[in-house]
Amino acid sequence: MESTLQFLADLVGGKITAGDPDLTILGFQSLSDAGDTDISFFGNEKYLQDLKESKAAAILVPPPSAGEFVTPEAVALIEVENPILAFDTIIREFGVAKPAFRPGIHPSASIGENCKIDPGSVSILPNAVVFDGSKIGSGTRIGAGAVVGENCEIGSDCEIGPNVSLREGSKIGDRVIIHSGVVIGGDGYGFEFADGRHQKIEQLGIVRVENDVEIGANTTIDRARFGETVIGEGTKIDNLCQIAHNVVIGKHCLVVAQTGISGSTRIGNYVTLAAQCGVAGHLTIADQTICGARSGVISSIKESGGTWFGYPAKPIKESRRESMRIKQLGRVLERIKALEEKPNQQS
Amino acid sequence: MESTLQFLADLVGGKITAGDPDLTILGFQSLSDAGDTDISFFGNEKYLQDLKESKAAAILVPPPSAGEFVTPEAVALIEVENPILAFDTIIREFGVAKPAFRPGIHPSASIGENCKIDPGSVSILPNAVVFDGSKIGSGTRIGAGAVVGENCEIGSDCEIGPNVSLREGSKIGDRVIIHSGVVIGGDGYGFEFADGRHQKIEQLGIVRVENDVEIGANTTIDRARFGETVIGEGTKIDNLCQIAHNVVIGKHCLVVAQTGISGSTRIGNYVTLAAQCGVAGHLTIADQTICGARSGVISSIKESGGTWFGYPAKPIKESRRESMRIKQLGRVLERIKALEEKPNQQS
Amino acid sequence: MESTLQFLADLVGGKITAGDPDLTILGFQSLSDAGDTDISFFGNEKYLQDLKESKAAAILVPPPSAGEFVTPEAVALIEVENPILAFDTIIREFGVAKPAFRPGIHPSASIGENCKIDPGSVSILPNAVVFDGSKIGSGTRIGAGAVVGENCEIGSDCEIGPNVSLREGSKIGDRVIIHSGVVIGGDGYGFEFADGRHQKIEQLGIVRVENDVEIGANTTIDRARFGETVIGEGTKIDNLCQIAHNVVIGKHCLVVAQTGISGSTRIGNYVTLAAQCGVAGHLTIADQTICGARSGVISSIKESGGTWFGYPAKPIKESRRESMRIKQLGRVLERIKALEEKPNQQS
Repeated sequence: MESTLQFLADLVGGKITAGDPDLTILGFQSLSDAGDTDISFFGNEKYLQDLKESKAAAILVPPPSAGEFVTPEAVALIEVENPILAFDTIIREFGVAKPAFRPGIHPSASIGENCKIDPGSVSILPNAVVFDGSKIGSGTRIGAGAVVGENCEIGSDCEIGPNVSLREGSKIGDRVIIHSGVVIGGDGYGFEFADGRHQKIEQLGIVRVENDVEIGANTTIDRARFGETVIGEGTKIDNLCQIAHNVVIGKHCLVVAQTGISGSTRIGNYVTLAAQCGVAGHLTIADQTICGARSGVISSIKESGGTWFGYPAKPIKESRRESMRIKQLGRVLERIKALEEKPNQQS
Repeated sequence: MESTLQFLADLVGGKITAGDPDLTILGFQSLSDAGDTDISFFGNEKYLQDLKESKAAAILVPPPSAGEFVTPEAVALIEVENPILAFDTIIREFGVAKPAFRPGIHPSASIGENCKIDPGSVSILPNAVVFDGSKIGSGTRIGAGAVVGENCEIGSDCEIGPNVSLREGSKIGDRVIIHSGVVIGGDGYGFEFADGRHQKIEQLGIVRVENDVEIGANTTIDRARFGETVIGEGTKIDNLCQIAHNVVIGKHCLVVAQTGISGSTRIGNYVTLAAQCGVAGHLTIADQTICGARSGVISSIKESGGTWFGYPAKPIKESRRESMRIKQLGRVLERIKALEEKPNQQS
Repeated sequence: MESTLQFLADLVGGKITAGDPDLTILGFQSLSDAGDTDISFFGNEKYLQDLKESKAAAILVPPPSAGEFVTPEAVALIEVENPILAFDTIIREFGVAKPAFRPGIHPSASIGENCKIDPGSVSILPNAVVFDGSKIGSGTRIGAGAVVGENCEIGSDCEIGPNVSLREGSKIGDRVIIHSGVVIGGDGYGFEFADGRHQKIEQLGIVRVENDVEIGANTTIDRARFGETVIGEGTKIDNLCQIAHNVVIGKHCLVVAQTGISGSTRIGNYVTLAAQCGVAGHLTIADQTICGARSGVISSIKESGGTWFGYPAKPIKESRRESMRIKQLGRVLERIKALEEKPNQQS
């Protein structure tokens, strides 16, 4: 971006209360990241300290009536009712916009037989491949190089990223965002050991992804052995997660990066699994459970709303108590030594 | 699926011993997942409890001679010699079948020069790319968007998934299954620090994957610095695993999801690395070793057949003993306090 | 390869000091991996033991003036000034060469409008897709099936691997290597919870990758919420790493396989994060910090040059002391028991 303070003040309907209207602004950043050509914003008193120390060229601030705050010296200020919203307006004006949706099927895309796709309302980008019998809803975009297997069903207004692989029979709801490199419907990991070899157990189920789900880049979700692997409505999965066969994740969960969930586990609604968690197979995790980063859950969690941590995961209080005790071990050894060295009390 | 109890009984050669032959069956599930329109099966006494509590509409059961078991009330029953096999017959009839193998090279695929590919016996799907000098065996399918680098050799009856990347020189055996998004033959991670910078050490070896290996979605296997990175016959690797350069994995191993193996480590035969394990570089892991989920192996394991756990990984007994002691720490502190508070025993 | 000892000695400008010049050499390996048809090299006294026990057919060795070393009996020897360099010459002669760079745009590639690409100096391989407004420098290769989003800028002499996805607006420096399956510029993982649902926070920034960076297969780097996610000059990232939105990684860092860095964290220069590390969000990691494998960093590291380990990560000495104390727990219990059992000392 390249803009002036005045242009930005006008854009957000604000008032310049300090600084030169002709000041050149080249970027937008958070208070702590902004440099001397950036505009930033103060929208939450949590950031009072960041505000005071910010090196921004200009800052969007609320009216004085919003509370006391100290701005750095020599900074330009634009006063607006809602700095968060105003900043959002600026980044939408100057940020990287998602490419416009252009309906149509690119000539380099390969479309199978008996598909239900309306070229007037669906956008299929170059070198995407859609196999026989698949159905794609209106307003949905299939990214370049993405592959949609046989008999998939994709709802409307979905974003299927570049180089995504949806294997045969996958069912995707409406308004689902699937980022680049995601694999949905790969075979579950199932083998039977016989005659000294691991014999493949056929994986004949599917993956069903409900409405409003978002799935991060290079995440993998395996098809069920039979029946369905399910990602519930509104659940958001981050990058590089592994969801095994027959897992059922409830609605509105957060599954943060690099987390893995083993086969047939059922996750309730509004569950949060922070980054790098692992959940063993065939478990049930109650609604609104929160697992701290890197927790390893090895038994079912039956009471809803708890916060868990550690490996094996324990209620957070218990886990903290244990950490505390480990920290005290040095002192424990000293105390034992003191006891052992107590002079023999025999007279 | 939509079927009747009678149709299913005929399909599996069984006998209806309870329930209405016209009962409508809409799906198939495990005992614990089945609902009131599903058929399930009881094939293993491990599931006696699941059987008793199943909400299935119908269950495939063995003859009474097979042992005692209690079925839920009002459930339809089909008696068959082998319920596991019978259920398999049903899911093969109604499950999501793998797409049929159709030999031929799709016109949108790009094939390099001097390749050895028989279009009458190989199936190359849309927008796949095969570079110069590669050789693909009969019965092998190259998925849509997959890329086969220069001078690769792929055996017969392999399934190379959509958007797989096989880099130049990779050697793949027969009946190998490589799921979507897998990368084989990326450069190993090798640098030398000189002049304040990490200088790339060229990675000039290859990856060799032996017969009957299966590799899960988005797993990465790096080419050797020189020589070969090897995945031994019959080994099954799950999704999102990382196999570094010059690793040699033996035959019939299981490497479960999100596990990483560092450079030059040699894994024996019949080794199991459960989910999210890490194995340091330049180690040797003896045959039939089992590492529990999330183990971090930092020294070689020389005795075969052991079970290891923890980080650093220890023999499981030792690891359990240590966990037990940590659990007892609260009690330890109490006991020390009691000792300290013992009244001074001087008379 | 198939060669003779004499041919190899001539190739590296060395002198045969033991063995038959006509000896057939079929491969090249490290000292410990080499078998009786391989040539190897001794370049570092760290490998004195490996040298003594090597089963290689021939070994490249430094002149006697370089120090004392013992070679295995009956091994052929080629004396050279610098065995590391000599070995490199051999593997460059016989190893798997990277495919030759051939400028031009393959007819199956799809190129958008208003791109700045000189077909005489750029190589765009089959089924690659470049969207509108992108700029690609001379000497850069775009791999088969790779996707370059709208308005990306890629410098010169880069290698963009097969099936890579660069999302819109990404900026890539010169001499950058991006391996297969990497995703750059996927949306950051940001949601606000309102009305019982996780509402998407638009991610409108970009990813900027500086010169001489290398990024391993299937790694994911998310675009900034606004502003930039930055990978600093010369930094090398291994496979399957996750770099969240607004992370800034400094120059010449090493980020080893399966490591994850959460949002807005700033990593200094010359930092090493070993395999499977995790770094929490909004932290600052000082220059030259080293984190051991699987460390979990949950607070900022302010002093540069330290070595950290564990979860939560601690200075390595502290971490080792703690491990040592846990190991001694068995003995602690015995000592307490002994104290408790001390005969009542009352007379």
